[in-house]
Amino acid sequence: MSRWAPDARERLEVAALELFVENGYAETTVAHIAERAGVNRATYFRHFADKREVLFGGEDILAERFGAGIRSAAPGATPIECLRTAFAAADAVMTEQQRAKVAQRVLVVAANTEVQERGLLKHARIAGTINAALRERGADELTARLAAEVGVLAFRVAVERWMKSTGGESFSHHAASALTDLQARATTFDSNPAP
Amino acid sequence: MSRWAPDARERLEVAALELFVENGYAETTVAHIAERAGVNRATYFRHFADKREVLFGGEDILAERFGAGIRSAAPGATPIECLRTAFAAADAVMTEQQRAKVAQRVLVVAANTEVQERGLLKHARIAGTINAALRERGADELTARLAAEVGVLAFRVAVERWMKSTGGESFSHHAASALTDLQARATTFDSNPAP
Repeated sequence: MSRWAPDARERLEVAALELFVENGYAETTVAHIAERAGVNRATYFRHFADKREVLFGGEDILAERFGAGIRSAAPGATPIECLRTAFAAADAVMTEQQRAKVAQRVLVVAANTEVQERGLLKHARIAGTINAALRERGADELTARLAAEVGVLAFRVAVERWMKSTGGESFSHHAASALTDLQARATTFDSNPAP
Repeated sequence: MSRWAPDARERLEVAALELFVENGYAETTVAHIAERAGVNRATYFRHFADKREVLFGGEDILAERFGAGIRSAAPGATPIECLRTAFAAADAVMTEQQRAKVAQRVLVVAANTEVQERGLLKHARIAGTINAALRERGADELTARLAAEVGVLAFRVAVERWMKSTGGESFSHHAASALTDLQARATTFDSNPAP
C-alpha cells in the first residue's frame, strides 16, 4: 500500500484505536501505529501533531459541521433551533459503523488523564465554533457562550445515549431529545428545589 | 529559609508566576522556579505533580469550597441558590490581593495550549464537584450536570468581570450577577431568535 494512499488518515485512526485497546494507550507508540497502518512515522506526523491527536480527528470534523449547520439555520431561528440544526448536520459522520469506534474511543479517553485533557480541549473548540457561529447570527455574547456550553453538554449526553441505544435512532434524534431535556431543566433552575 | 518552611507552596506559586511572566512559560523550568522560591526540586515535586500544576492550586481550593458551599445551602434551595451559596464561599480566597495574580495567570494560561488543557481539566473538576454536591442533595442527573456547566461558565464570566472591575465589589457579587444574567438567557433560549 502506498504511503500516499488517500485513506492513510483513516487507516491510522483505525490502527491507533486497535492498538490502544489491545495494548493500552501508554504502551503504544506512534511507530507502532504507523507500522500497523502500513505507513511511516513521517506520514503519521503529516496527519496528526502528536499521539493524542489521532483520537480526535472526528471532533474537528464535527466542530466544522456544527458551525456550518448553525450558519445554515433558518433566519430568525432561536438558539435551541440553531443547535438542533447543528446536530442534524452531524448525522452524515455519526453513522452506525462509527458507533462501535466511538464506544472504544470513550474508554481509551476516560482511562488516561493526558488524553482526557486533549478531549476537553476539543470540546472547548466545539464550544468556540458554536459560540462564533451564533455571534455571526447576532446573538449577544452571553447567549452565545451559554448556548455553546449547553450545546456541548447536549452533544456529550447524546453520544452517551446513542452508544447505549439499541433502537437504531440517528445521532441527531438523541441530540434533539437531550436538548429538550436540558431546556426543561434550565427553565426551572430557580424554582425546583434540589431536592 | 528552610525548605520545610510552611509557606513553600505559596512561595513556589509566586515564583512560578513571576518567571512565566518575565521569561515565558516554555523557557522556565521547575529548577528555575524552585531556585527563585529558595527550595530544591524535590520540594517542588512534593507540592506539585508537574510544571503546569503550580498554576492551578487555586482551582483545587475553589472546587473544594464550591462543594462545601453547596452542601451548606439551605434545605430546599434551588440549583441557582446552591450556586450562589457556592460562589459566596469563594470570597475568602478571591481576595483583592489575588486579583492581580489571577490576571497574570489568565495571560500565561491563554498563551500556551498545554497549560490551557490543564486549565480545562481543572474546570472539568470544578464542574464534577458541583455536580456531585447537587446529586447529594437529590438533584436528578441532568439537572446536576447542567447546573455544573452553567456554574463553571458563571465562574469564568465572574472572574473576567472581577478582573476588569474597579469598584471593589466582591467576587461573589460578580458571580451572582453573572448567574442572574445567564439564567435570564436560559429562560428565553427557545423564544428569542438569534438575532
